[in-house]
Amino acid sequence: MSQYRIFNSEDAIAYAREAAQLGPDMILQGAEIGDGNLNQVFRVCQLGEATGWIVKQALPYIRCIGESWPLTRDRARIEAEILLQHGQSCPEFTVAVLHQDASLSAMLLEDLSELQVWRQALLNGQHFADAPVQLGKYLAQVHFHSSDFCLDYQAQRAAQTQFANPKLMSISEAVYFVDPFCDHERNNVAPGIRNDAERLWADQPLKIRVAKLKHDFRCKGQALLHGDLHTGSVMVAAGKLKVIDAEFGGYGPMGFDVGVLIANLLLNLCSQPSSSAQRQRIKDVQAFWQSFNRQFLLLASQTADPALAEPSYIAAFLRQVWQDALGYAGCEMIRRTLGVAHVADIDNIADADQKIVSQRHALALGRTLIMHADQLNDAQLEKIALACRPQC
Amino acid sequence: MSQYRIFNSEDAIAYAREAAQLGPDMILQGAEIGDGNLNQVFRVCQLGEATGWIVKQALPYIRCIGESWPLTRDRARIEAEILLQHGQSCPEFTVAVLHQDASLSAMLLEDLSELQVWRQALLNGQHFADAPVQLGKYLAQVHFHSSDFCLDYQAQRAAQTQFANPKLMSISEAVYFVDPFCDHERNNVAPGIRNDAERLWADQPLKIRVAKLKHDFRCKGQALLHGDLHTGSVMVAAGKLKVIDAEFGGYGPMGFDVGVLIANLLLNLCSQPSSSAQRQRIKDVQAFWQSFNRQFLLLASQTADPALAEPSYIAAFLRQVWQDALGYAGCEMIRRTLGVAHVADIDNIADADQKIVSQRHALALGRTLIMHADQLNDAQLEKIALACRPQC
Repeated sequence: MSQYRIFNSEDAIAYAREAAQLGPDMILQGAEIGDGNLNQVFRVCQLGEATGWIVKQALPYIRCIGESWPLTRDRARIEAEILLQHGQSCPEFTVAVLHQDASLSAMLLEDLSELQVWRQALLNGQHFADAPVQLGKYLAQVHFHSSDFCLDYQAQRAAQTQFANPKLMSISEAVYFVDPFCDHERNNVAPGIRNDAERLWADQPLKIRVAKLKHDFRCKGQALLHGDLHTGSVMVAAGKLKVIDAEFGGYGPMGFDVGVLIANLLLNLCSQPSSSAQRQRIKDVQAFWQSFNRQFLLLASQTADPALAEPSYIAAFLRQVWQDALGYAGCEMIRRTLGVAHVADIDNIADADQKIVSQRHALALGRTLIMHADQLNDAQLEKIALACRPQC
Repeated sequence: MSQYRIFNSEDAIAYAREAAQLGPDMILQGAEIGDGNLNQVFRVCQLGEATGWIVKQALPYIRCIGESWPLTRDRARIEAEILLQHGQSCPEFTVAVLHQDASLSAMLLEDLSELQVWRQALLNGQHFADAPVQLGKYLAQVHFHSSDFCLDYQAQRAAQTQFANPKLMSISEAVYFVDPFCDHERNNVAPGIRNDAERLWADQPLKIRVAKLKHDFRCKGQALLHGDLHTGSVMVAAGKLKVIDAEFGGYGPMGFDVGVLIANLLLNLCSQPSSSAQRQRIKDVQAFWQSFNRQFLLLASQTADPALAEPSYIAAFLRQVWQDALGYAGCEMIRRTLGVAHVADIDNIADADQKIVSQRHALALGRTLIMHADQLNDAQLEKIALACRPQC
């Protein structure tokens, strides 16, 4: 079984049987359970069991669009390598890759069915108090271990080359920094916020800030990013957290991952009519950032190079990561409101006026984060986030 | 002729005959003429001619040290590819690669014997008024054509991978950012400035600035750098200029090339007892920077992405390149004074006191550039450069 074909359930079962060495006698059942935009995902279980293994397979095109948008299957190999690397840096919070097969564009993953997608938990109003802190630890670990604080020149250059992911990251470049800032055909702009979108497309100072963020996304190869760290890429349960879905990963600025996660918490904030729920999201952002900051400082202070281990150097470095993060958070908020891919937090709002308020809030807060990234600290975020909410 | 061996003159002639398709009847003579630290260089000419072809060959070790410091021969292939790439971007000012042979670690170059090395010209007190302007044009061309102003995401990532040069650039990292800022065994510190060196090694604020420059050298992959753009890598004649020796090239911050060139002009300034010669070097620096700035602005303003083409974005981008350049210039001045490789401008000074003054001048100016990179413009450079000269 080595020639690529698009898996059906039987293929997924056969691959899982071989990859997990389950033996010919075990009776297995499998079903496609994927809800993502890109790939097929199967759960394969022993008959009568609810939990088993996950088979993830890349198609030669983008699943939600179809064969008209071809996309390299090699993304499956790259994703598996990134997850394995992140798993070495932070096994506690990274989904385990049990097997990968580059020719089938498939991998076998641990089944996390006792966990739920964090975005869904937030939509349900469930609060996982540990998640922001755990995620901060995760990100500090995976960033630190792929950065110049940990790797020497040759090892880091080799990693930058090994994890080059030009096809997928060029999609990120387009959907984060190009499409949402012009009247692009890929955009998905609700009629009720068309005027807001047009004002934003004419906003030259904003676009110049975004140009700098785009430049850094491409040229600032600080760490091996997850590349798509929204609340849908995080699975949670009481005291447990696992990060999945790293196909957009590759070297880039640390602030990108930090900012995308912050933005998704703030998008949830924008979707909340209650100010207490809004405040909780701010607390989540602060807990995430402080956890990342604390953990990174701890790791970096053990760096062999005494200049890099100097607390004032690390502090200045982390200040810059925070500034970058606010800029990228702003881009994520805007692109999730005007671009091709929205978030359920806001799209699911039934009340039309309420939805427009949330979308305007997201645009205004996104713009503010980009324009004032160099002036805001995490304590000021609550005031700013609430002040950006438009009056109904 | 495809198996590697260390060339003697006969081998160099045979290689040149084959590579330049000279035919068996042409009578050729060849001699080793290299004065560099790393490679062998032969001039091969037709009998009775002074000019012919240059054969450059990498040894499996560093030539000036010997077999005890092995170094990948693959550097010859990388250098040839970089020169060819730069030659496409700026044929006027890049030495022409006529042929390359990766298995022999050799390349055939145009013979520039009618030109002289710019450092030697400066040592002789000869003034080539066009050189700074030409070099600014050269650098703007080669940087622009390998940057995000010109290449799309995938093309730039492919170039970053193609031109990865980890062995040589890790040497640069060590000799620029590590050795000179500690009491390293590779350093070459004259007894007369030992106290100055020790003060610098204890200078924590300076070392933190250098840590940031080191980080950016590794992580800020903006353009395909020359990587070693000192005045010994530039050949000049009336109205003519060619850049040679790109073995340390690879992706990095544009400010690195700009800064290394500025530093070498300022090191010459430090070697000059006469204030009029000092002022001329400042004028050279200003002419170089203004030429680079003007040419880059011109090229960048034609970028397809309207945000990148915005004059205020390009201006802010170039301000950052200048700031980076001053930092890297400072590192180059310090490492050429305390590190393993000095410059003839200062090392050749016969008078011992005068030499110490020049070395102290270089250290003080280097430190000032690093510490005040974000506050200095090119007009202020004269005042700062002269103020850093110690009293005899």
